[in-house]
Amino acid sequence: MAELIAVDWGTSSLRGARLDDSGKVLGERSAPLGILNVPNGDFAGVFEAQFADWMTGGARCLISGMAGSRQGWAEAPYVACPAGPDELSSQLHWIERDRIALVPGLSDTQGDVPDVMRGEEVQIFGAMRLAGLADGLFVLPGTHSKWAVVRRGKITGFRTFMTGEVYGLLAGHSILARTLDADAPLDEAAFRRGVARAGEGEGLLHNTFGVRALGLFGRLSPAESASYLSGLLIGEELGGQELPASGEVIVIGASALVARYALALGARAAKVRTFGAEATWAGLMSVARERKP
Amino acid sequence: MAELIAVDWGTSSLRGARLDDSGKVLGERSAPLGILNVPNGDFAGVFEAQFADWMTGGARCLISGMAGSRQGWAEAPYVACPAGPDELSSQLHWIERDRIALVPGLSDTQGDVPDVMRGEEVQIFGAMRLAGLADGLFVLPGTHSKWAVVRRGKITGFRTFMTGEVYGLLAGHSILARTLDADAPLDEAAFRRGVARAGEGEGLLHNTFGVRALGLFGRLSPAESASYLSGLLIGEELGGQELPASGEVIVIGASALVARYALALGARAAKVRTFGAEATWAGLMSVARERKP
Repeated sequence: MAELIAVDWGTSSLRGARLDDSGKVLGERSAPLGILNVPNGDFAGVFEAQFADWMTGGARCLISGMAGSRQGWAEAPYVACPAGPDELSSQLHWIERDRIALVPGLSDTQGDVPDVMRGEEVQIFGAMRLAGLADGLFVLPGTHSKWAVVRRGKITGFRTFMTGEVYGLLAGHSILARTLDADAPLDEAAFRRGVARAGEGEGLLHNTFGVRALGLFGRLSPAESASYLSGLLIGEELGGQELPASGEVIVIGASALVARYALALGARAAKVRTFGAEATWAGLMSVARERKP
Repeated sequence: MAELIAVDWGTSSLRGARLDDSGKVLGERSAPLGILNVPNGDFAGVFEAQFADWMTGGARCLISGMAGSRQGWAEAPYVACPAGPDELSSQLHWIERDRIALVPGLSDTQGDVPDVMRGEEVQIFGAMRLAGLADGLFVLPGTHSKWAVVRRGKITGFRTFMTGEVYGLLAGHSILARTLDADAPLDEAAFRRGVARAGEGEGLLHNTFGVRALGLFGRLSPAESASYLSGLLIGEELGGQELPASGEVIVIGASALVARYALALGARAAKVRTFGAEATWAGLMSVARERKP
């Protein structure tokens, strides 16, 4: 197999890596050129400017993330769950035959309300590859957190939570913004208080007002308020999850956020394994290897 | 007793009524001069400009709402629950002795997390007076919805829900804003779907992402999305409430919002009684009558 150029093209950033045929990372690049920041919608131009020097000698490029959405380079329709690397590689959307392809996202249409992901499925396949797992519960914290169940190498179902986005709205644009220091570092005790409060069954709409009331009574400082609110939201997200019998949860994402989820999961005695950006490259490698000739 | 000038001075608006000593409304006024819009913080000047011609012949004025907060005209410290009109009238904050007073708000510090209200307590006392009730469950929908329990003429405890504010943030500023028509009229079927979905236990952070996913799959139009989201949030707020044995709930507020709560409460077989702005004037009348000489 020729060299793989692995690209994660999301809403706000564009990241790429050059991998040899064992999956070893030979180089990485990133730019603030997410799909919402592509001048004149010229995806081909941005791609060539960023990666032309890597696309030599028969190298192939797989692109995951929002670049494959309706607002992206081209639409790669969702593949329905259950799906593994094999299902994705058989439904690549080729921009240039055998040179550049968009990896489709996944849909879960098994319940009353559908769900979708784009990019996270590749990170999950990557973590499976890196951890040597064919089964497990995978969490990808973020603006829209994903919880996915993997069985025998395939994602069988998943759910999205607007945790990060709701945190940003409440911390930055609600009445809570007046008495909350959003730039304060994590206060672990306040965060744990928030997680515990979320478990008491009062509901998120009530608990969030509690941030203001606790502040009015001097029982939560502006710095503590930010961590407490974060704990309320992450605790709410975790509250609805059934942990596997093994107690193991795989958390994939940026280290600061992963650390918060590990803290909250620790309160439920979960065993947490974590992965970062390397999961994306490994996942695209899995999709490339499954590719039918 | 002399004539009462009843004023509700909130965050975004200033409303007043002139009442005779039977409580009959002789005239009403309002201006967009909420406490955040008082030029140079000159509360006395705004008050005199709006109401000087009413403040004659020994008339007295009681002011409820955020004018009594730290950011208002002067701070009237919270009175702790349980409290009725008597407790409020004995702790008025006089701006001018026997002429103009701020009515304090209430605090509920009985649980782990405190709660507060300013202005809604007066509306509750007014609805009690108008309905001839000394016991009941009272709901005041809004930016920050309040649920209060009344026993023997006193508010014994209450809880706040950030329902209206979270709706505004999600409908106007989240990813949902792209595919939601916030100006569409209420679609009752979509609203009921949202209320029902909220009762299925998936949690608000997941259910709100469902608005986007249902839209992507063409199962919710932009107009339906707004009503469905409203149903999700109001349903979430209602989900945590224990209804009284009588099944009766008193809802106080603007008619369009009250109608949504009546719909959602109807799905739980509650008997709903509703009150509007008249509750404020009746409540201030109750506080005035309890006033010790």
